[in-house]
Amino acid sequence: MRYDIKDVNSAKKGMVKIEWAKKDMPVLSGIASVFKKSKPFKNIAVGACLHVTAETANLMIALKEGGAKVGLCASNPLSTQNDVAAALVKNFKIPVFAKKEYFAHLRKVLDMRPNITMDDGADLVSELHAFRKSQAKKILGGTEETTTGVSRLKSMAKEGTLLFPVVAVNDSMTKHFFDNRYGTGQSTLDGIIRATNKLIAGSVFIIAGYGWCGKGLAMRARGMGANVVVTEIDPVKAIEALMDGFRVMPMAEAGKIADFICTVTGNIKVVGLETFKNIKDGCVISNSGHFDVEIDLPALRKITKSRKVLRDFVESYELKSGKTVFILAGGRLVNLGSAEGHPASVMDMSFANQILAVKFILENKGRLSNSVHLLPEILDKKIAALKLCNLGIKIDTLSERQKKYISGWRNGTK
Amino acid sequence: MRYDIKDVNSAKKGMVKIEWAKKDMPVLSGIASVFKKSKPFKNIAVGACLHVTAETANLMIALKEGGAKVGLCASNPLSTQNDVAAALVKNFKIPVFAKKEYFAHLRKVLDMRPNITMDDGADLVSELHAFRKSQAKKILGGTEETTTGVSRLKSMAKEGTLLFPVVAVNDSMTKHFFDNRYGTGQSTLDGIIRATNKLIAGSVFIIAGYGWCGKGLAMRARGMGANVVVTEIDPVKAIEALMDGFRVMPMAEAGKIADFICTVTGNIKVVGLETFKNIKDGCVISNSGHFDVEIDLPALRKITKSRKVLRDFVESYELKSGKTVFILAGGRLVNLGSAEGHPASVMDMSFANQILAVKFILENKGRLSNSVHLLPEILDKKIAALKLCNLGIKIDTLSERQKKYISGWRNGTK
Amino acid sequence: MRYDIKDVNSAKKGMVKIEWAKKDMPVLSGIASVFKKSKPFKNIAVGACLHVTAETANLMIALKEGGAKVGLCASNPLSTQNDVAAALVKNFKIPVFAKKEYFAHLRKVLDMRPNITMDDGADLVSELHAFRKSQAKKILGGTEETTTGVSRLKSMAKEGTLLFPVVAVNDSMTKHFFDNRYGTGQSTLDGIIRATNKLIAGSVFIIAGYGWCGKGLAMRARGMGANVVVTEIDPVKAIEALMDGFRVMPMAEAGKIADFICTVTGNIKVVGLETFKNIKDGCVISNSGHFDVEIDLPALRKITKSRKVLRDFVESYELKSGKTVFILAGGRLVNLGSAEGHPASVMDMSFANQILAVKFILENKGRLSNSVHLLPEILDKKIAALKLCNLGIKIDTLSERQKKYISGWRNGTK
Amino acid sequence: MRYDIKDVNSAKKGMVKIEWAKKDMPVLSGIASVFKKSKPFKNIAVGACLHVTAETANLMIALKEGGAKVGLCASNPLSTQNDVAAALVKNFKIPVFAKKEYFAHLRKVLDMRPNITMDDGADLVSELHAFRKSQAKKILGGTEETTTGVSRLKSMAKEGTLLFPVVAVNDSMTKHFFDNRYGTGQSTLDGIIRATNKLIAGSVFIIAGYGWCGKGLAMRARGMGANVVVTEIDPVKAIEALMDGFRVMPMAEAGKIADFICTVTGNIKVVGLETFKNIKDGCVISNSGHFDVEIDLPALRKITKSRKVLRDFVESYELKSGKTVFILAGGRLVNLGSAEGHPASVMDMSFANQILAVKFILENKGRLSNSVHLLPEILDKKIAALKLCNLGIKIDTLSERQKKYISGWRNGTK
Repeated sequence: MRYDIKDVNSAKKGMVKIEWAKKDMPVLSGIASVFKKSKPFKNIAVGACLHVTAETANLMIALKEGGAKVGLCASNPLSTQNDVAAALVKNFKIPVFAKKEYFAHLRKVLDMRPNITMDDGADLVSELHAFRKSQAKKILGGTEETTTGVSRLKSMAKEGTLLFPVVAVNDSMTKHFFDNRYGTGQSTLDGIIRATNKLIAGSVFIIAGYGWCGKGLAMRARGMGANVVVTEIDPVKAIEALMDGFRVMPMAEAGKIADFICTVTGNIKVVGLETFKNIKDGCVISNSGHFDVEIDLPALRKITKSRKVLRDFVESYELKSGKTVFILAGGRLVNLGSAEGHPASVMDMSFANQILAVKFILENKGRLSNSVHLLPEILDKKIAALKLCNLGIKIDTLSERQKKYISGWRNGTK
Repeated sequence: MRYDIKDVNSAKKGMVKIEWAKKDMPVLSGIASVFKKSKPFKNIAVGACLHVTAETANLMIALKEGGAKVGLCASNPLSTQNDVAAALVKNFKIPVFAKKEYFAHLRKVLDMRPNITMDDGADLVSELHAFRKSQAKKILGGTEETTTGVSRLKSMAKEGTLLFPVVAVNDSMTKHFFDNRYGTGQSTLDGIIRATNKLIAGSVFIIAGYGWCGKGLAMRARGMGANVVVTEIDPVKAIEALMDGFRVMPMAEAGKIADFICTVTGNIKVVGLETFKNIKDGCVISNSGHFDVEIDLPALRKITKSRKVLRDFVESYELKSGKTVFILAGGRLVNLGSAEGHPASVMDMSFANQILAVKFILENKGRLSNSVHLLPEILDKKIAALKLCNLGIKIDTLSERQKKYISGWRNGTK
Repeated sequence: MRYDIKDVNSAKKGMVKIEWAKKDMPVLSGIASVFKKSKPFKNIAVGACLHVTAETANLMIALKEGGAKVGLCASNPLSTQNDVAAALVKNFKIPVFAKKEYFAHLRKVLDMRPNITMDDGADLVSELHAFRKSQAKKILGGTEETTTGVSRLKSMAKEGTLLFPVVAVNDSMTKHFFDNRYGTGQSTLDGIIRATNKLIAGSVFIIAGYGWCGKGLAMRARGMGANVVVTEIDPVKAIEALMDGFRVMPMAEAGKIADFICTVTGNIKVVGLETFKNIKDGCVISNSGHFDVEIDLPALRKITKSRKVLRDFVESYELKSGKTVFILAGGRLVNLGSAEGHPASVMDMSFANQILAVKFILENKGRLSNSVHLLPEILDKKIAALKLCNLGIKIDTLSERQKKYISGWRNGTK
Repeated sequence: MRYDIKDVNSAKKGMVKIEWAKKDMPVLSGIASVFKKSKPFKNIAVGACLHVTAETANLMIALKEGGAKVGLCASNPLSTQNDVAAALVKNFKIPVFAKKEYFAHLRKVLDMRPNITMDDGADLVSELHAFRKSQAKKILGGTEETTTGVSRLKSMAKEGTLLFPVVAVNDSMTKHFFDNRYGTGQSTLDGIIRATNKLIAGSVFIIAGYGWCGKGLAMRARGMGANVVVTEIDPVKAIEALMDGFRVMPMAEAGKIADFICTVTGNIKVVGLETFKNIKDGCVISNSGHFDVEIDLPALRKITKSRKVLRDFVESYELKSGKTVFILAGGRLVNLGSAEGHPASVMDMSFANQILAVKFILENKGRLSNSVHLLPEILDKKIAALKLCNLGIKIDTLSERQKKYISGWRNGTK
């Protein structure tokens, strides 16, 4: 078995992490225990490019127990939990490629000739479309975890370039309503606080982007006592932020009063030269969007006199203007860089979507167009219902009378 | 000119209300002032069934100034502001039918032979489909303001019964994100507080339904210090409520601890016999969903010993069990019954959608299927942009580089 | 019996209000039912100057049932609920003086030769000290309901002018923690919304003063979706506001961006000429502090071109500068002017303090210095415990072991 | 120079931490730079028992620069940052005693014959009163940082045992309003999240104690999306929690539904046998009160089958009943155990109080009784004003007219 990880000897510590996460992933576990018997993934190779965390490990194990041949590479150079990688290799015989050689590792997974790709940011699909088109024939479909990846895939589909169907796991309600919002919200603040130990209460906290991730982060930053300012390019989201009680302004204005800036937009150079020029002295800047392009570090470096690592994930940039700014986790995902990523409880639903998406692709072999697909709403509701059940929460059900009423139109004002 | 209102002499007071609302409706006013010149509605009759409020008056006036012949009946027996009706009749020569004769009034508006229907709950469309099918030919399309109405219209479309296209104004982002959420949230609490003057802080406040209206109400009830409990029938919405920090449980359980119950579901008998049987003594029950069917008053009356009106919109029901519950505004929309409905600022966007929807129907004459249509996203964004502009809020715009990045797929992890 | 009220014939409607409030005043009722038997106030005349509301009526009735001779005048020209006054006169034979003749009415109550004064703002005490010093001998003590009144009384005591002891009911925990915070918070927003029906969400809402009332109002304004800005003169309160996530700035700066301003400071000219000069066009200004001096209306009038009443409690001031501002309730307490004052549930504890304060004065006759006194903490806790009990809430009690631990010092780090 | 720390070689890393914290401590720094010149602490020995963190280091350095001879021991076996201790010893020549020998280390500091004691929990004072009474003569006074310490000292003073005056730094407004509330709130959640990486949103989070620490924690736990339940023994605080929208119930009831329990009471056995018996399976229990006595671990161990360390600060207790609970940081202060304690920005004000308290004791030598004293309010306001100034926040000042008004009593209702 080939693999490429930092240190295979930390497997024991990794196992403990995997077990700890598993406790909060009852939905995935429940589905996995059924698939362990029915083996729906027999003879299928799944190539995955995901953050190598304890939660991902549980997904990989579930796929393998369901009969799949599995290979995993790291979707981000910074987010790999090495001990978890070791446990996957050593205890579960799952090939993991998770050192610094990012593209080499993508290729290692493609070398395994997957029938299903599983992506977090669409890098596996992109690499294949750019350099390994021939492999596309063997691929039944892919799944995609992130808003950014779905956006890239939709561009491919629109262009007519996409060579197989992809399920936008991100767009399931039980994914983006929860993982993007409550997961990103908590883990991003966690990352910023672990990196800096700075007080959030009373600070001016700028959030670039008011999508699901931005909404989650805004909610949590306010919850920690920050005075939150939102920047947007979409007028609808901008008014939403406003009505939610936040200030809204352009980034260049916001930078002048910012104690913290965090980007969650999916775009490039969101914090750029214009902002750096008038930025508040001492501002702490981080990114929780998928790629490390949201903060324009090249532009920042040009106006920087000296840099220095102050704490594990804090680098100070002393600017020629005399001001200092602090960049967290090198501008990469701060929630995975300086913290541990999303809590398992929320990944439980996301990865239940992933495993059901693989099954959905297999079951609909030959019936899906080469475009971006949603999981059927019924699966979404099933996952939600399982989660509620595991949390011990009961809800109402519609009576026959109510079902009839809600699907009719003849009852009106009396 | 025919009309049927309570007292035409209160027009002066109504004018003041219309002017007061207008101050907070700059988007509608801006569009109206353009249409006043271009007269896009020339030779068009618009038959509207809406709440007769100061905000609606501004919409009617804008339609008329845009060239339309306009007739208005009240969409709810309780919500009519009589002085506003008087002002429309006397000062603007708009026929208004807004006394108790609900169905007679619907017919009066249909008698005007509208080319466009404008509905709040789909009653005008239903009446026409049930009793005046022949008029459908003359109708170019309709617009619908509410979640409930859209739900009814979709049932009709699904059945194949719908005889003309309808634009679901409710489903515009600048409508339901704002009016349903922030409008219903504030005005419902306002209605409950005006009716009762009871302290919300520290109370257990049950909200039935966690759609946009329910989310708005939950946000505001918590904002006033209540301990909010949500009841749902949809597992996805139930977990959302849970993750937002609320308790979730079945209504029959919730009723036992409820100081307040408010329904916003669109369904019938949401608070029914089972709940009444074990309800907390002194519970205040109201509805902010479209129809007055959500609280099962017939069932309640059967177990009631005596009833008494205590304050303007508060009726006490002394139950045979010895407990007392209080029903607000007779189970009709409490935000329009005991308060003044949504603030003008939020109706500004909703009614900008309405007037643009009418224009959209005219411009697409013959091109729309007999089903439920969305306004194009570009109109939605235009309304949002106008609102922001009027509020003096500036936002960022994408650079060419960013536009290219966001629409491409070739840039990935580095 | 002498009295001076608007219309004695509305007594029936007033009775309903009194009964409605009573439902939420179980603590006062409980104490009252004990005193009804023990008659602790026999031969005692209580002269009260309070807001004539349904809650106050319950206090007056309780005092009378406890054996006192009671006289009541209105502490604010705007807050009197006439029907309640009528019910007190007609059904309970309690003299009430509550028309426009403010000082004449104070004198009417003093004419009754009270042994106990009961004040809301210290006007009765001030009047007596200014013009009726001779009556002081007969007075055993007074009680004071408000922060403003306590502040005035402390000034008198410091000066050495105070002629009898006064109990600062306001300073009981079960008073100012609750009534000032949750009561003022809810009722002030209620007053502003009833007066204007404007959307709070997304507005910039300036609160002058971050004392207990200001904290309550800030909490509720944010809870309704406002972006709250606090102005202060005390640096400690200013940082508290900041850490609570609000912006803090001087009033003159705040006025420039204000959609709403509300004062709760206890001081004069808090919104003055400097602020009016650069105020945001359309700003809604109200006061929820005790006296109508916080908004400098004389200064405003000097720069005003024309005034006009737009809604019941909204007066527009068109300024010479071309801008318009709106003053609510004539600058008087907006929560009592355009709404109904604090909810009964919170007045329950405040007035339980009042009635126990009267008893405390009687029991300590001759033992209290002529200064401002607190009710003993044990009474405070008793009121809280009764309230919890009535709300059906159980809490923990200290074990003997815990009591010993908490009162000792010998157990330290192990 | 004597000292006793783990590893003096990590000084460089410690220096970076001290410098990082210093950036957020401008008030202390400002005072320190003045004292560096005036040397108010010349010939004075200060014996301190505090958490050995980067913030404390800045206080120690400031005292030394102000002329004092300084000795420091760790106030908690778990909270010492070893690298910071190393930097104090190596770079600043300050004796630090911070290994496991808790009482030996207290004695080492007392061996330095301090004139001023500086305590965090009153252990130094207790040790001295228990075993070294003779030293008391030389002591001019002490300072105390915590609620728990102040409570112990008041017990001593009440008993008549206290041998010198102590300044309750904790009771300064700029201390307990901020450090206890915003500091404990953030750092406790930080500790729990770092230890577990569990999702807070949607969880039931029990907080024992609604004092300043409890209020802060409740605010932040809700801010992260938890459904917060408060337990209390004081009825006033219990209603406060209720009115703030939280549920209130006895601990034994709360335990049954708890996902998290955190104690901040200052008392013993707050989570005891009765609670453990019916506790929810999987409950995570931690303490953020001063001593590790709030969770009754001895009782827990008696009903435990097996224990296991799962993550760095997570120990699982598998109970004989079959349930499992998780204890964080061994029941010691979780915010210092698994996180880094309060952020520097909030310690800035706390330690500004400490250094001014030392100066206050010196200036009032011989004039203070052997009891617990408050710092004068004017110092409190000075610290707050300095903090605001450093944060760039401007506030209003009273005009002469306003000062006169607020200190008078002759202006009343008009």
